[in-house]
Amino acid sequence: MKIINDLDIEGKLKIVQDTKSNSFTFDSVLLANFTTIKKKDKNIVDLCSGNAPVAMLLTLKKKDLKIKCVELQKEIAQMAVESIKINNLENQIEVINDDLKNISNKINKNYYDIITCNPPYFRVDEHSNINENDSVAIARHEIKVNLEDIIIESKKLLTNVGTLNLVHRPDRLDEIIILLNKYGFTINKLQFVYPAINKSSNTVLIEAKKTKTINNKMQVLEPVFVYDENQNYTEQAQKIMDLKGS
Amino acid sequence: MKIINDLDIEGKLKIVQDTKSNSFTFDSVLLANFTTIKKKDKNIVDLCSGNAPVAMLLTLKKKDLKIKCVELQKEIAQMAVESIKINNLENQIEVINDDLKNISNKINKNYYDIITCNPPYFRVDEHSNINENDSVAIARHEIKVNLEDIIIESKKLLTNVGTLNLVHRPDRLDEIIILLNKYGFTINKLQFVYPAINKSSNTVLIEAKKTKTINNKMQVLEPVFVYDENQNYTEQAQKIMDLKGS
Repeated sequence: MKIINDLDIEGKLKIVQDTKSNSFTFDSVLLANFTTIKKKDKNIVDLCSGNAPVAMLLTLKKKDLKIKCVELQKEIAQMAVESIKINNLENQIEVINDDLKNISNKINKNYYDIITCNPPYFRVDEHSNINENDSVAIARHEIKVNLEDIIIESKKLLTNVGTLNLVHRPDRLDEIIILLNKYGFTINKLQFVYPAINKSSNTVLIEAKKTKTINNKMQVLEPVFVYDENQNYTEQAQKIMDLKGS
Repeated sequence: MKIINDLDIEGKLKIVQDTKSNSFTFDSVLLANFTTIKKKDKNIVDLCSGNAPVAMLLTLKKKDLKIKCVELQKEIAQMAVESIKINNLENQIEVINDDLKNISNKINKNYYDIITCNPPYFRVDEHSNINENDSVAIARHEIKVNLEDIIIESKKLLTNVGTLNLVHRPDRLDEIIILLNKYGFTINKLQFVYPAINKSSNTVLIEAKKTKTINNKMQVLEPVFVYDENQNYTEQAQKIMDLKGS
């Protein structure tokens, strides 16, 4: 069933979603909050954009952004278009319903200041019983696109000083770092998100830039805790939902 | 000046150190606490062992361990010998005053269950004004040995199911992961240590094992906080000083 929800905590933005097949997660909010937008930054590509939660949240952070959302699944891209219309963001956000592989041949190369991506988290070989046509499975598993595809295209799209911002699972962090290095990225910042203060991390936020040499300046930011001991959102999580940093 | 200090919080172990040139740090305690010793584990090598704080603390965790400490600097190795004697640990800990490079030609290959290492943290090229004969500089900077040397020797010393346990700085984590991967290690566990709850991490603990394929099972354990808001040790840090986990 298609419904309209609040996207941000104050309800400034609305989002159209299908509760069965697709609804935005806290990971998108974390990614939008984590992504640093500098004064001169303007052009952004959001890969695996879904119904555009990250792109729409980013418009709250800076008013003159031009964002291209790339989403493969037609019905989800359509919900992104509807969401953008409801929020009157048509002048800032464009939805491209296409495969991100080779997207750099269709939009500008070496042009974008920032790429954001909340990709499918799971390798296909970890799970044997996936329905490869299922919309939820495509969003969660690397059926149509994998991390390497994303990094390859990001490299082509970004300017030389641009940043790639990812949200992913810590159990793949070694693979992520190795792949980023393989394609000429180094890590600027990591931030680990823990469901609670005494739990293992279940989410990692990554900012990488195009540099050939490892400069040993990687920063691991203060940890983010989502829930307190009473299973309520922490103050920190609430600030993040308000895009006010961690 | 050479003095004798308590090593663990309860003072069960003593350590001989020179306050000017060398004294053990909390990083050694973190490493000893972090290192998982399984029931069948017995043979350990502690590389860059200094005055043997890690090795001595490990003997509190399991009684039948046989540990070889490898320390290049003669006067520091001598303090390790004295410390081991004071604690009557001569049957468990042996000090080898030698370069760790090619140490696998002098002790057993494919034999050790666990390697621990609190290495020099800083690259030499980051700092130009190092006195390369200074004992403190050798302990802190990669003058005589670097991370790659440590990983190469560890690979040779460990059994196929053995683990390499490191404490290091997060600003070099990408390099560490890439080097571990280059020499056929994957990460089992990471744990980040933060000086306080709202600060960036200044220490990372790493457990790696010999495996060629990345298995995407890396775990990022609960964060460790050293100081509370009043600049006192947290309860968690005190438990670690007692080797009671984090």
